[in-house]
Amino acid sequence: MKQCGKQTACLQNPVAIGASACVAGKKEGQGPLGGAIDTLYEDGLLGLKSWEQAESAMQKEAFSLALGKGGYTESAIRYLLAGDLLGQCIGSAFGLRDCAVPFLGLYGACSTMSESLGLGALLIDGGFADRVGAVTSSHFCGSERQFRLPLEYGGQRPPTAQWTVTGAGAAILERADVCGKPGSPKISHVTFGKIIDMGIKDVSYMGAAMAPAAFDTISAHFADCGTRPEDYDLIVTGDLGSTGMDILRGLFAKSGVTLGRNYNDCGVMIFDLNDTDVGDGGSGCGCSAVVLCGHILNEMRNGRWRNVLFCGTGALFSTVSAQQGESIPSVCHAVRIMI
Amino acid sequence: MKQCGKQTACLQNPVAIGASACVAGKKEGQGPLGGAIDTLYEDGLLGLKSWEQAESAMQKEAFSLALGKGGYTESAIRYLLAGDLLGQCIGSAFGLRDCAVPFLGLYGACSTMSESLGLGALLIDGGFADRVGAVTSSHFCGSERQFRLPLEYGGQRPPTAQWTVTGAGAAILERADVCGKPGSPKISHVTFGKIIDMGIKDVSYMGAAMAPAAFDTISAHFADCGTRPEDYDLIVTGDLGSTGMDILRGLFAKSGVTLGRNYNDCGVMIFDLNDTDVGDGGSGCGCSAVVLCGHILNEMRNGRWRNVLFCGTGALFSTVSAQQGESIPSVCHAVRIMI
Repeated sequence: MKQCGKQTACLQNPVAIGASACVAGKKEGQGPLGGAIDTLYEDGLLGLKSWEQAESAMQKEAFSLALGKGGYTESAIRYLLAGDLLGQCIGSAFGLRDCAVPFLGLYGACSTMSESLGLGALLIDGGFADRVGAVTSSHFCGSERQFRLPLEYGGQRPPTAQWTVTGAGAAILERADVCGKPGSPKISHVTFGKIIDMGIKDVSYMGAAMAPAAFDTISAHFADCGTRPEDYDLIVTGDLGSTGMDILRGLFAKSGVTLGRNYNDCGVMIFDLNDTDVGDGGSGCGCSAVVLCGHILNEMRNGRWRNVLFCGTGALFSTVSAQQGESIPSVCHAVRIMI
Repeated sequence: MKQCGKQTACLQNPVAIGASACVAGKKEGQGPLGGAIDTLYEDGLLGLKSWEQAESAMQKEAFSLALGKGGYTESAIRYLLAGDLLGQCIGSAFGLRDCAVPFLGLYGACSTMSESLGLGALLIDGGFADRVGAVTSSHFCGSERQFRLPLEYGGQRPPTAQWTVTGAGAAILERADVCGKPGSPKISHVTFGKIIDMGIKDVSYMGAAMAPAAFDTISAHFADCGTRPEDYDLIVTGDLGSTGMDILRGLFAKSGVTLGRNYNDCGVMIFDLNDTDVGDGGSGCGCSAVVLCGHILNEMRNGRWRNVLFCGTGALFSTVSAQQGESIPSVCHAVRIMI
């Protein structure tokens, strides 16, 4: 039965993550997970002319590294699913325009990595592809220009603000029976989420806006699959930040469910939160992409975790909507990965 | 065999379009296809405070009308696939945030309607949903603000510029064996396209940027399916405009293939091109959505066309990329619809 409960897809044949790679900037390299990042860039421009070009170059590099790690050629990939935070998703379009692979553009804000993994897995399990690429990125400087203030202005950030990760992640999904790497992590369940908008308007407190969406999707996943938090080695949101994590724990506690020590957040994992710059933690499409495609999948391959619920969370607002006084609709997509 | 040739998905069980609806503005209502539009708005603001709010309201209304026509409740829809042209796709997020349906955000610029139809059809044929909604929109005033000049400036438009359609379209896709409406049009093949960038930089000549992408995808579709243009009652791009159509005809002619009288373009169909305002024709995610979800599907149901190749084309640029001197990467996704 591929339709499990109200909103979960149960894959008939779990889809392997045959290879993954991530690249990031200097600050991410200095964080606790720096060792799991394949390529670190000292220069945020990557020697290019604009932050947007640099972001595109990171997507291209992450995809290329993932192909290389898996020993695949581009022609082995049937579809590319990609997105980013920039208006009209130019990070993806320009980053992947030289790939001769059919391209599906996605927009899920910081949930894009989980959206691309989920859709890619369903395309494979549905029989429409043997192998797809899922790629996302973000860039601190490009995001600041896009969503906030010119960097040169040196604006003060409230403590609940998150720091957009400069980085990109790429995963190659493939039919388990054609996967060249036995023992790869596999996607078994996908729970796409509804848009939830609880009326939060503070764009410097996006963890609060997104936590209810995470609660809705993760609760639906538990109900559909008949599971509880303790059935997973790791439940990881991306990215609520540390106060958003507390809100999510509180929402679950109210419903009688305890999120224990196996709960973490990509935004909290990627930076040292004693660094006051980063505020409440990391954010951006690149944050959960880098943490998943580096640290989490590495640790799964190393045997530390066998059963992970990866829950990308996205704030679906723009500067225009914020300036018009609108609240922040949010979404969360959950992907269960087992090894 | 669900993977047909290099990039086409052949559905095992063609997916029915159980219902469709579209809404649009005054100018679209005055065009040749005005009679096929379900609801026309005299006021571009729809009585709301901003063009962005008006665009969101159109998405909501189009989806609601499609549900009503098919006799469906929202709870019968497993996934919503939606996108629009606005930065961070706020037309879709705000338009559909009140729907309690898992939401997958897409970005394909003006190809979004075909991307959502294609992905939705594959999710159903793959067994992951019985019924999904595909919704897209655009708004002339919101797009001008987003991509060009303030309306108040009264900028002159070159003759190759296209006019963004104010409108939204929605289609309800469903498994043919659960479809409440026998004899519905059905999606049988989906050819997702690669990004093609021939170096065109003129954002007032997007037909020229997108025509090579249309050529690439439609050629791949013909090759994968072993078909020729004359095998279709209608091959329709959306939206190249009239000069873009000429370029596409020329590209096919060079390859020895004639696009005959059965070739048309949604941008050319929706407006009276004697209206000098509209320049080369309509554009925007809403253009092909309105033409498909109104006129084309109606005429298929009426028996005029039995075999349509619907080819959404998107220009994947932004104002930032244009201002940085970049060219316009483009994409085209083709969906074959039969009755």
